[in-house]
Amino acid sequence: MALLVHKYGGTSVGNLEKIREVAKKVVDACNSGDHVVVVVSAMAGETDRLFKMAHQVSSEPSQRELDLLLSSGERISASLLAMAIQSMGYRAISFTGRQVGIITDSFHFRARIKKITADRLKEAIEKGIIPIVAGFQGISEKGDVTTFGRGGSDITAVALASALKADRCIIYKDDVDGVYTADPSVVPNARRIKKISYEEMLEMASLGAKVLQSRSVEFAAKFNVPIHVKPTFGEGEGTLVTGEDEEMEEVMVSGVISDKNQAKLTIVGVHDRPGIAADIFGKIAEEGVNVDMIIQNVSEKGLTDISFTVPKSDSKIGFRVTKNMVEKIGAQDVKLDENIAKVSIVGVGMKSHSGVAAKMFAAMAKENINIIMISTSEIKISCVIDSKYAELAVRTLHDAFSLGKQ
Amino acid sequence: MALLVHKYGGTSVGNLEKIREVAKKVVDACNSGDHVVVVVSAMAGETDRLFKMAHQVSSEPSQRELDLLLSSGERISASLLAMAIQSMGYRAISFTGRQVGIITDSFHFRARIKKITADRLKEAIEKGIIPIVAGFQGISEKGDVTTFGRGGSDITAVALASALKADRCIIYKDDVDGVYTADPSVVPNARRIKKISYEEMLEMASLGAKVLQSRSVEFAAKFNVPIHVKPTFGEGEGTLVTGEDEEMEEVMVSGVISDKNQAKLTIVGVHDRPGIAADIFGKIAEEGVNVDMIIQNVSEKGLTDISFTVPKSDSKIGFRVTKNMVEKIGAQDVKLDENIAKVSIVGVGMKSHSGVAAKMFAAMAKENINIIMISTSEIKISCVIDSKYAELAVRTLHDAFSLGKQ
Repeated sequence: MALLVHKYGGTSVGNLEKIREVAKKVVDACNSGDHVVVVVSAMAGETDRLFKMAHQVSSEPSQRELDLLLSSGERISASLLAMAIQSMGYRAISFTGRQVGIITDSFHFRARIKKITADRLKEAIEKGIIPIVAGFQGISEKGDVTTFGRGGSDITAVALASALKADRCIIYKDDVDGVYTADPSVVPNARRIKKISYEEMLEMASLGAKVLQSRSVEFAAKFNVPIHVKPTFGEGEGTLVTGEDEEMEEVMVSGVISDKNQAKLTIVGVHDRPGIAADIFGKIAEEGVNVDMIIQNVSEKGLTDISFTVPKSDSKIGFRVTKNMVEKIGAQDVKLDENIAKVSIVGVGMKSHSGVAAKMFAAMAKENINIIMISTSEIKISCVIDSKYAELAVRTLHDAFSLGKQ
Repeated sequence: MALLVHKYGGTSVGNLEKIREVAKKVVDACNSGDHVVVVVSAMAGETDRLFKMAHQVSSEPSQRELDLLLSSGERISASLLAMAIQSMGYRAISFTGRQVGIITDSFHFRARIKKITADRLKEAIEKGIIPIVAGFQGISEKGDVTTFGRGGSDITAVALASALKADRCIIYKDDVDGVYTADPSVVPNARRIKKISYEEMLEMASLGAKVLQSRSVEFAAKFNVPIHVKPTFGEGEGTLVTGEDEEMEEVMVSGVISDKNQAKLTIVGVHDRPGIAADIFGKIAEEGVNVDMIIQNVSEKGLTDISFTVPKSDSKIGFRVTKNMVEKIGAQDVKLDENIAKVSIVGVGMKSHSGVAAKMFAAMAKENINIIMISTSEIKISCVIDSKYAELAVRTLHDAFSLGKQ
């Protein structure tokens, strides 16, 4: 008899028919003897509808107001799902973030959880009532409704699983049936990964794999909550995201990810003296632009080139900020390149296997793909390449590390 | 510098354009030097949409779940209105029922307010921030969201006006511009009443005038909160509902109302012995049927007829319950008549004027309208008549008491 947290995303509860199907899934799980706590997102499209209305009445709606507005979406789906379960003859009760005691800081629209009491949840579970929790939201100490930003309902699910010491947090997906070795639309023989470590999942999420958001994986890793990604309406076994184990280390590389949402900025002819890099990246950080990879070429005659990547959505701001600094730091020019892709391989096995980078570079070279930038971590190697080679690079690396179906 | 509570109904905030217009009205009121607290209903159609979804996932949705679901509607309009006001350069903040401390009992879907703290409201007013409160909802002591039933946002407005000791509660209406001496669609020369007493308004509301719900008028009377009914988008002066004053007493009759939503049940040939009426109406009350008028004919030879009216929607239940009792109480038969109308005249002036009833009956007689039942209170006389004469009776009485425009 396990205690499970089920999380259903917006497309899984996208209409009343699907809500009824989800109700049936929840009831089946309970009938098989498990305790189930359910977390739901807003019905697909609802958050967008509310967000759009907000932007129609105000060009820059306040985040506090947006939080109150958007949190309605999850309340609606939670109460509807509770009703659907009740109509099947089972006891269910819907809760808001506040009602299950999810206390957050006051940073609206990107609040972080500070504490979870979960008293009413525990009470419901003890009484055999199925609790349905509105995801994505909590309450600040002041009593205001806060939301967690993108992937917020996953965070609710993982946080509740942690607070309740649940055996597993199952994140049901309507659009994918697990985490794959590569994007199946690019690599036809990509394989579903049965088990992956938090670290790898975190790298893959940060690198652009869309199955889970980084923040919920971070949370799960921190509190050691096993996450099981499964298809909502299929029979697939999905992917278990959990602590590292020996079996995982046997695999050198777990997945290949490409990300075309990056742009490269290069400051040409920078005077190579201490403090320059701090100046540049301090200024960029002030503008709220996230810098990902940074490389500095070997300096010749006291001049150097500094290249770095930023999200494509921030490339204009990044370019403007850097351009404004050119004169001040005595550089020659700034170049913006938006036609790049970042291709990465991820695997905990890298820790214990040598030669992974060399194998990666060789595979790329064989296809005449030029590597522009390289960045490595303990379990990841990323290369920036010309974006037109992105898919070829992913397929090549997927083959090189024998990740496909047998 | 007055403290005003503005209440805007669902059609007044029915779309984003109207929300912007309401924002302007609120801002104008603030600019003219008043403090304004705003209460809003859900955007027109939203509550119905949510209610319909609930009934699609469950044939009998639980009232606790319905409350959480439906309360979303007012949260959405409150936050959108706050955003609209902010976008005009003013400070505004939206609050839920919970956030302004509206504590209710636990009777979901028809909760009654037990206490209002209004701390955050007072704080906002002191800081010059315009508070926008989601109407229709409160929170039980257990922490569950509760709603107040039909006209619930009016109740929120009146209750807050009372808690804040506001100078006036202005209820803005998009469909009517005040309270009339009779329904203008029936009586073309019906006149807007400038000032009416709580008692009269209460009678008119109970008798079917739809401008205000009885409960909010009761609340206003109890706490002596002046209610001003005004048109949202027009310039009309509306109707002030307030304590009785001398001016009002000069008028014998204030208004004429007809109600076709009643049905008459007659139990024929009842043995006239003590306890029979208690038996009958006890049984009917057990079924939750509201009985309005009751008359018992003069008893002859120990047998009597008992007639009473019930809402048409309950006539089938009422008929069934009564029919089942016929044998037990030794009566002869039960008859149901759905073709009736209740026509009433209301006026505090009746207290000090004699002959009002006689004048009413004479006017009806002159038009050959037969009176089936009569019921009187201190400030009201109601007659049940054949429903086909309802409009004629209203026009006749309106003329007889000279209520029309001069």
